[in-house]
Amino acid sequence: MVNDSSLAAHGSLAYDDFASSDWYMYESMEPEMPQDDKFPSVIPACDPTIPNHLYHTCMAPISLAVLIVLSLLVKRKSLYKCCWNGAPGLLSPVNFLEAEGHQGLVAAVFGILFSSVCVLVLDTDPLPFIASSSPRSREYWKIMALLYYPAFYYPLIACATIRHRAGYFVGCLLSWCHCVVHIWQKVDCPQSSKIYRYYSLLSYVPIILCLIVLSIWYPVLLVRSFTQEKQTAREVVGNGYYNEYLKTILAKRTPKRSSRKVSLLSRAQMYLRSYIYTPQEGFQVPLKLVLSVTTAVIAVYQMALLLLVVFVPNIQIVRAGMTKEITVLLVQFGVVPSENPGSVPGDMERELNTVRHYLWSLEVCYVCSLVLSCLLTFSMLMRSLVMHRANLKALYRGAVLDVFCRAQMLCPSQQALVCWMSFASFQTAFACLGLLTQQVIFFVCTVGFTFLVVIPLQSGTNMHLFKILENMWPFWLTLVLAVVMQNLLAHFYFLEKHHLQKELTNRRALCIVTYLLFPINVLVGVLAGVWRMFISALYNAVHFCQLDLSLLNRGVEAFDPGYRTYCHYLKIEVSQSHPVMKAFCFLLLQVPGPEGQTGLKPTDVEEGIQLMQPVKGLLKASKSKQMRARWGLAYTLLNNPSLLACRKTVLSDPTANGTQSRPAKP
Amino acid sequence: MVNDSSLAAHGSLAYDDFASSDWYMYESMEPEMPQDDKFPSVIPACDPTIPNHLYHTCMAPISLAVLIVLSLLVKRKSLYKCCWNGAPGLLSPVNFLEAEGHQGLVAAVFGILFSSVCVLVLDTDPLPFIASSSPRSREYWKIMALLYYPAFYYPLIACATIRHRAGYFVGCLLSWCHCVVHIWQKVDCPQSSKIYRYYSLLSYVPIILCLIVLSIWYPVLLVRSFTQEKQTAREVVGNGYYNEYLKTILAKRTPKRSSRKVSLLSRAQMYLRSYIYTPQEGFQVPLKLVLSVTTAVIAVYQMALLLLVVFVPNIQIVRAGMTKEITVLLVQFGVVPSENPGSVPGDMERELNTVRHYLWSLEVCYVCSLVLSCLLTFSMLMRSLVMHRANLKALYRGAVLDVFCRAQMLCPSQQALVCWMSFASFQTAFACLGLLTQQVIFFVCTVGFTFLVVIPLQSGTNMHLFKILENMWPFWLTLVLAVVMQNLLAHFYFLEKHHLQKELTNRRALCIVTYLLFPINVLVGVLAGVWRMFISALYNAVHFCQLDLSLLNRGVEAFDPGYRTYCHYLKIEVSQSHPVMKAFCFLLLQVPGPEGQTGLKPTDVEEGIQLMQPVKGLLKASKSKQMRARWGLAYTLLNNPSLLACRKTVLSDPTANGTQSRPAKP
Repeated sequence: MVNDSSLAAHGSLAYDDFASSDWYMYESMEPEMPQDDKFPSVIPACDPTIPNHLYHTCMAPISLAVLIVLSLLVKRKSLYKCCWNGAPGLLSPVNFLEAEGHQGLVAAVFGILFSSVCVLVLDTDPLPFIASSSPRSREYWKIMALLYYPAFYYPLIACATIRHRAGYFVGCLLSWCHCVVHIWQKVDCPQSSKIYRYYSLLSYVPIILCLIVLSIWYPVLLVRSFTQEKQTAREVVGNGYYNEYLKTILAKRTPKRSSRKVSLLSRAQMYLRSYIYTPQEGFQVPLKLVLSVTTAVIAVYQMALLLLVVFVPNIQIVRAGMTKEITVLLVQFGVVPSENPGSVPGDMERELNTVRHYLWSLEVCYVCSLVLSCLLTFSMLMRSLVMHRANLKALYRGAVLDVFCRAQMLCPSQQALVCWMSFASFQTAFACLGLLTQQVIFFVCTVGFTFLVVIPLQSGTNMHLFKILENMWPFWLTLVLAVVMQNLLAHFYFLEKHHLQKELTNRRALCIVTYLLFPINVLVGVLAGVWRMFISALYNAVHFCQLDLSLLNRGVEAFDPGYRTYCHYLKIEVSQSHPVMKAFCFLLLQVPGPEGQTGLKPTDVEEGIQLMQPVKGLLKASKSKQMRARWGLAYTLLNNPSLLACRKTVLSDPTANGTQSRPAKP
Repeated sequence: MVNDSSLAAHGSLAYDDFASSDWYMYESMEPEMPQDDKFPSVIPACDPTIPNHLYHTCMAPISLAVLIVLSLLVKRKSLYKCCWNGAPGLLSPVNFLEAEGHQGLVAAVFGILFSSVCVLVLDTDPLPFIASSSPRSREYWKIMALLYYPAFYYPLIACATIRHRAGYFVGCLLSWCHCVVHIWQKVDCPQSSKIYRYYSLLSYVPIILCLIVLSIWYPVLLVRSFTQEKQTAREVVGNGYYNEYLKTILAKRTPKRSSRKVSLLSRAQMYLRSYIYTPQEGFQVPLKLVLSVTTAVIAVYQMALLLLVVFVPNIQIVRAGMTKEITVLLVQFGVVPSENPGSVPGDMERELNTVRHYLWSLEVCYVCSLVLSCLLTFSMLMRSLVMHRANLKALYRGAVLDVFCRAQMLCPSQQALVCWMSFASFQTAFACLGLLTQQVIFFVCTVGFTFLVVIPLQSGTNMHLFKILENMWPFWLTLVLAVVMQNLLAHFYFLEKHHLQKELTNRRALCIVTYLLFPINVLVGVLAGVWRMFISALYNAVHFCQLDLSLLNRGVEAFDPGYRTYCHYLKIEVSQSHPVMKAFCFLLLQVPGPEGQTGLKPTDVEEGIQLMQPVKGLLKASKSKQMRARWGLAYTLLNNPSLLACRKTVLSDPTANGTQSRPAKP
């Protein structure tokens, strides 16, 4: 037994050596900075050259005008080609069910939108037109703002979807405008008094980055529309991916010689690879998933930023403002160890340093746990993407039971549609909440570890945990011995190897041991129970942001709102945008009409399923074309049985039966 | 808007009406009781007529002597029948793998043992021989006591398993002795100074009840051994259940006409029935499960008792000792609302009553949550039993995939055996921890509900929650409107009914709505995330005591120590005590040996599997007997493929193949 007082003396000696070195980097790094400078009150009020309300007052009418002009353009095109053929002149933002849009562009606009909403939540002036709103009416303005911002950024996304040169040109101008104004505002006033001097600047970083992406994307689209004009005119846009997908799944596969003995290293590699998303040839993640992951990443950034600026500057201020008087109080409360608890504030230099060291440790713990949470959330989001791809591929080939627990119809329903609409939003919100939960758990754990293990080992004081462990060692030893003994007995005494497998023997002794060790096993069970509690809480916290996992047990998975949303999302996605079905639709659209009056336009692509009916006449054009289309149809129906009901009248039975087996390469 | 001060005035008026009635029942019920009387220090020291150490000093040698005498008796019987036939003279406590022992008796002994361990954990003198141990050495004595108590109660359980009249007689005497001493001690000294005056008495209730069960069971056994002597001598003990099981599964089943339309009421009944364990004809729960549930129930009782006596008497003392000075402090801290915060302690009568009312509310919350936790834990334990039975039946008929996620070999292994040994202990420990977790969660929830909803509604003060809700109503309304609107749109506008199922339509509008409602859906997602967090935490807390459920997700179920233990337990139980196999073993044992020198005794029943080898010769006695035995064997192997390896040399292939289809009733 080491004497406590000697331990303490030794500890403080070690601590002195410590304090004399440059351990307290913050002391040497920021000694000149006056303490008051850190308070938000000293940040000078700043009015940007282009105030926010002026920006919105100008841009909102311009956006509206752009929308109207583009709508008229769409109508004129429809009018010109064939009279009012179902095109209502409304601009669609983006077809979420189509794989080949400009995914990056759409993701950027959603990023801008979500970041604006994030900034809005903490803002005192939610709507830029209403200058200084009262706290009472702020609620209403915030709700209005939730609807205003999507409308405000609507033209940025709609300009690309009409696939017209004029749209790209207007998109260029709009994105440049937005981008220049935002950058100018932030260059004018990099600091603000909200929460932390640089918080406003940092929270606008995603918006500015996304706007830069847009300002580059639109010019590229415009230039490409001039150069590739002739090539794309003859081809239905978006056909490329579906054809590629078909080619990939129809390509002859070289059967992999999977050796039975998989080495441990390669198994670890495979496990790691299941957490890292690498693009696969011939498969593209649907747009909604790209959106959900983009906004989730931005959500994690905004949440982490907020968590950082709320805690770290404040604790730095507290540390800088720590005085000897407060230290005396802390010593008297027993929070900080001291050799002379009754001392006057004059000679508390060492204790003051200890308090500052503690505060610095808290800060380090906080930042470490935040970094860990962010990394875990990002890796879980990536893992989510891998799982999404695996699930989608399984559903594409009809393996419903690989994904869901029980067989389910993959057809749209009201519930499924509502879930599909809110999928990206849920993913974003869950990433936020998941990060928060993880941060709380990891912070508590790291603080516990630091103050119970690291600091006692460093300074030799506050050895509570070690004393408890030291006092309880016979108890731990007993438990370990009991478990080891049971394992050894089971291995050498209670089991004997018969021909092929092990068989029970010495049953009488087994019963005696079971009876005698019952009380000790209860204590082992308490430890196992604590472990069960811990592991399930940790697992749920870490996997909270993953919608593809249910946090509930096997039988009641559907009660988890996240998992339920995901399942319904998958149903809609697979039933409405199966790549083989889409490829078939494009195939039909590309058949050159013999009379030239088919009425099928590239803009009708998203209505592919509705278009299946009028195609019937076209199939008679040539035998090979018909066969190809029939094959495509049969394959589609095979993989997408929900379409059967619609097609029953068109497809004759023998054809359907003839293609029940997997068709060969056409 | 209601004025705040008028609200408060109205509230206190209502409160006055309240206080004047007999709301404060405790005031009228215990006004005469002197306050000091509640403190444990005034409980007189009490020495029972038979001190604990005297009891143990006498009974321990007696128990040892009984053990030795009974062992000699077992040896003499072996010696007499055939020379030292593998019987080591050690008394087995009970064969856990045999279904038909005296389940109640064994459960009672395990109850005594576990209750003793519970009492021991909080005791200052863990070993009764060592009077006043130092805190340092107490650890060691506690560990010794964990081994001492099972040995001390060993004869109580062993007397029944030798199935001899002398054993029953000694069992009678021993259980009477224990019972009388325990009751006498508690009648002598009903109160003790430990935690609460009646805690010691109440914590001994399970021990005394179990001892009473034993003191009745042994005489019944003794009497039955005289009356049923001739009947049982010819029959192998324990055969009854297995035969009954066989008869039940071979009985012709009347195919149930399950009507397609199951009414809501009957479905609710079925659901409720799945939570209530009712015995089924022809199936008996294995002994280990009975033990685990018995000790789990006792564990819940002991834990609930401890939780009750730690909190309730203390808060009653605090309430009784509440003075006006403390009330002033509480008012100044803002904990208790007051109309005149600066008042002197003299006129604080009303505030004092408020504080007492708050404390009384806390007590009610605590007791309510404890009752709720206990009820939930009991119902989960019962549900567990139902699940155990369903799982065992499924495994008996070979439906491995109904129980486990993937196909598994049902054969003993070291891990499985260790888990089997500690199964009952784990169930007990998990029930304890589960109750504790539930109590914490429910207490926090009920206190929150009481102080945020009930008390504000009663008194009209502290309306924080209502004010927040009132301020946030536009926000809630927006979310509700958004969700309702999406549902209505999905139902009436985005879906149209084609021939058999619904199909998506108006895709352009769908995309516009999805884009515009994205920010609001993020907020809906935050609520869904909070709900996800809450529901998963609540589900895990409520189902914590159930070992048959994994608290982790589908893919990683095995990392849950509880579920892992349960799976391994099932493997051992099914592979080693399959009722059909047991019935077959008994069938073979009952065949009357033609030469009378078979060497098979009823006491060898538990070694049934090992006995299969020498039976080979007996089968030739008569043709019908042989056929019966063969049928039994084939059926056994069919249901218990793990035995195939042992039997390969004995069973000829054609016979095995001939019975692959389900055999008819013999």
